[in-house]
Amino acid sequence: MTAEIDPFHAIAISRRAHQLAAAGRSIIHMEFGQPSTGAPPAAIAEAHRILDADAMGYWESPALKARIADHYRAWYGVSVEAEQVILTCGASPAFVLALSCAFAPGARVALARPGYVAYRNTLKALHIEPVEIACGEAERFQITAEAVARLDPAPDGLILASPANPTGTIIAPDQLAAIAEVCRRRGIRIVSDEIYHGLSYVAPARTILEHDPDALVVNSFSKYFSMAGWRLGWLVVPPALIDAARARMGNLFLTPPSLSQHAGLIAMDCRDELEGHRETYRRNRALLLDALPGLGLRRIAPPDGAFYIYADVGHLTQDSYGFCMALLEETGVATAPGIDFDPIDGHRFIRISFAVATDLVREAIARLAPWFAARAAA
Amino acid sequence: MTAEIDPFHAIAISRRAHQLAAAGRSIIHMEFGQPSTGAPPAAIAEAHRILDADAMGYWESPALKARIADHYRAWYGVSVEAEQVILTCGASPAFVLALSCAFAPGARVALARPGYVAYRNTLKALHIEPVEIACGEAERFQITAEAVARLDPAPDGLILASPANPTGTIIAPDQLAAIAEVCRRRGIRIVSDEIYHGLSYVAPARTILEHDPDALVVNSFSKYFSMAGWRLGWLVVPPALIDAARARMGNLFLTPPSLSQHAGLIAMDCRDELEGHRETYRRNRALLLDALPGLGLRRIAPPDGAFYIYADVGHLTQDSYGFCMALLEETGVATAPGIDFDPIDGHRFIRISFAVATDLVREAIARLAPWFAARAAA
Repeated sequence: MTAEIDPFHAIAISRRAHQLAAAGRSIIHMEFGQPSTGAPPAAIAEAHRILDADAMGYWESPALKARIADHYRAWYGVSVEAEQVILTCGASPAFVLALSCAFAPGARVALARPGYVAYRNTLKALHIEPVEIACGEAERFQITAEAVARLDPAPDGLILASPANPTGTIIAPDQLAAIAEVCRRRGIRIVSDEIYHGLSYVAPARTILEHDPDALVVNSFSKYFSMAGWRLGWLVVPPALIDAARARMGNLFLTPPSLSQHAGLIAMDCRDELEGHRETYRRNRALLLDALPGLGLRRIAPPDGAFYIYADVGHLTQDSYGFCMALLEETGVATAPGIDFDPIDGHRFIRISFAVATDLVREAIARLAPWFAARAAA
Repeated sequence: MTAEIDPFHAIAISRRAHQLAAAGRSIIHMEFGQPSTGAPPAAIAEAHRILDADAMGYWESPALKARIADHYRAWYGVSVEAEQVILTCGASPAFVLALSCAFAPGARVALARPGYVAYRNTLKALHIEPVEIACGEAERFQITAEAVARLDPAPDGLILASPANPTGTIIAPDQLAAIAEVCRRRGIRIVSDEIYHGLSYVAPARTILEHDPDALVVNSFSKYFSMAGWRLGWLVVPPALIDAARARMGNLFLTPPSLSQHAGLIAMDCRDELEGHRETYRRNRALLLDALPGLGLRRIAPPDGAFYIYADVGHLTQDSYGFCMALLEETGVATAPGIDFDPIDGHRFIRISFAVATDLVREAIARLAPWFAARAAA
């Protein structure tokens, strides 16, 4: 039997938001996890140059692989060789590649609930069994070494995401080390999604590679580098998996977009501009954290990083999808329902993405305040 | 156990070719299946425009999906709805998507040998069992209805490729109808790779959708549309599989590159230029078909389409990889060894790609003539 894969409900919200916008309504898009800013101007200038200079065949950029390897030394002080870097068409296929290299059908891979829905669905599509670890407020919605130690039997693999989607919570360095230690002891292969690295508002997130050189690491240009639609990501694999990963890349995906590789190389050095985006998100986050308690939203995962607020709306609804749809229809603010991230408890959460201009966050708060007040009074 | 996936040997040839070029040697690249031309100028102009106008988030172009649906009416007279079109990052992920939607691990899927190596490897990566149908000169290296009828037990699926890689042979319309009929009778799901459509030198290739509305069809902008490095392709799925395909696309791949979708839409209307490329290939093909018998290469698959010559060199070698490497070292002409396409009989074949400028084909022939004469005399 082929696998049953759930759709993203946020896509239905977004589709309705675009219908309303087409009908003249003012819509604030906080439903998707993507920057509203574009690529850095220097990266765009490089793209213009290449468009006129290169016929753009199938291509992997040796310079970009080397630059990404350098990035691990510069950001984390860990040594990664260029050959360990597999360039992909975004983090999603990097994740498919990682799971396909590391696990066979029937394997069991643990992951946090709540979590990014594609983890669960990609596992299911590859006929790998997801083993969900319920992570509540007490654990800051994150996996702990203790929870991994308790799994019986030990799973074959573990997916980490720090900063996480939908919560933005970061696993503390000592906890990350402890998780790696438990996994080493129990023979559990770690796949770490580090796509939100660079976007933290407390201490920077650390890579799992500091603790586990055998882990597979997924990352991309879609978040910190503000190049979502360019579809460029990467996978770091341990030396023993390089051949398996390269063979899969060549057969299943071939190469990432040539133009994006040229532009991405330049974007990696546009730090001032990218840090400017982070400052915007930091402001947006502060505005929301300041305003939401006044709206009655007091149970919020601590958004250490990424650009999300995951808020408990259980006092108002047990149907997060209907709630998000009503919120959209009545205020024009599009958000994502918790059921996209947690099939069990997500009915009482919503995710608000604050990767938009600060003025729009202010406007969203102004619209949400009376709406939540009315809901609470109803 | 994770699957063992073979590498492309042509990649090693290409790497050596680039080393030789860097050392000052004159190299003619006939090892890969990609046009040496770039995207049509109007498509490039559109890319310039969008680069400056759009922040390029995750995006699927409704206009491109509709345009591709129209393409089926215009080229083949078959009706395809825009919702049946799934836009992908090239044909390779379209193929992953198709196999994942249609087959479960353990399923058996038949395919031609020789054939594009990624079919076999992607099946293996998805833990689907490849059932190879040996297709020799007598069958013009193509699958026949008779061969499908003979398979015992009936496989779950069948991969068709017409024009084929590495041979360029096209399945005749009556044979295509007969294959569809056998598959319908035996309950075999067809996945048709139509990536070389548009590139035929005899009658145009027909789509399997004319005979089987339940088939899945893979296509891309990499060949006829001359946009290989843009990584844009599509999958046509029957209505019953739309939801499964869309859910997989969203989870496993998300979206194709935004810029490529904008440019691809324009490229579809650049027929004059694209037909010009086909004329170049037609000339190149004629030059090679004229010259190769004089080089002792008389057993050649009839290249009805695509841009390949698949030639039997069994009178000179039983090691096609070593043969291609020697040919490269001694003449600077890079080709692909048959073992990339046929693990059993490929040791005595080479594939020559003629998607290069006509002058380079002439130069290649001039270099090959004395080399083959010397080999034959040795």
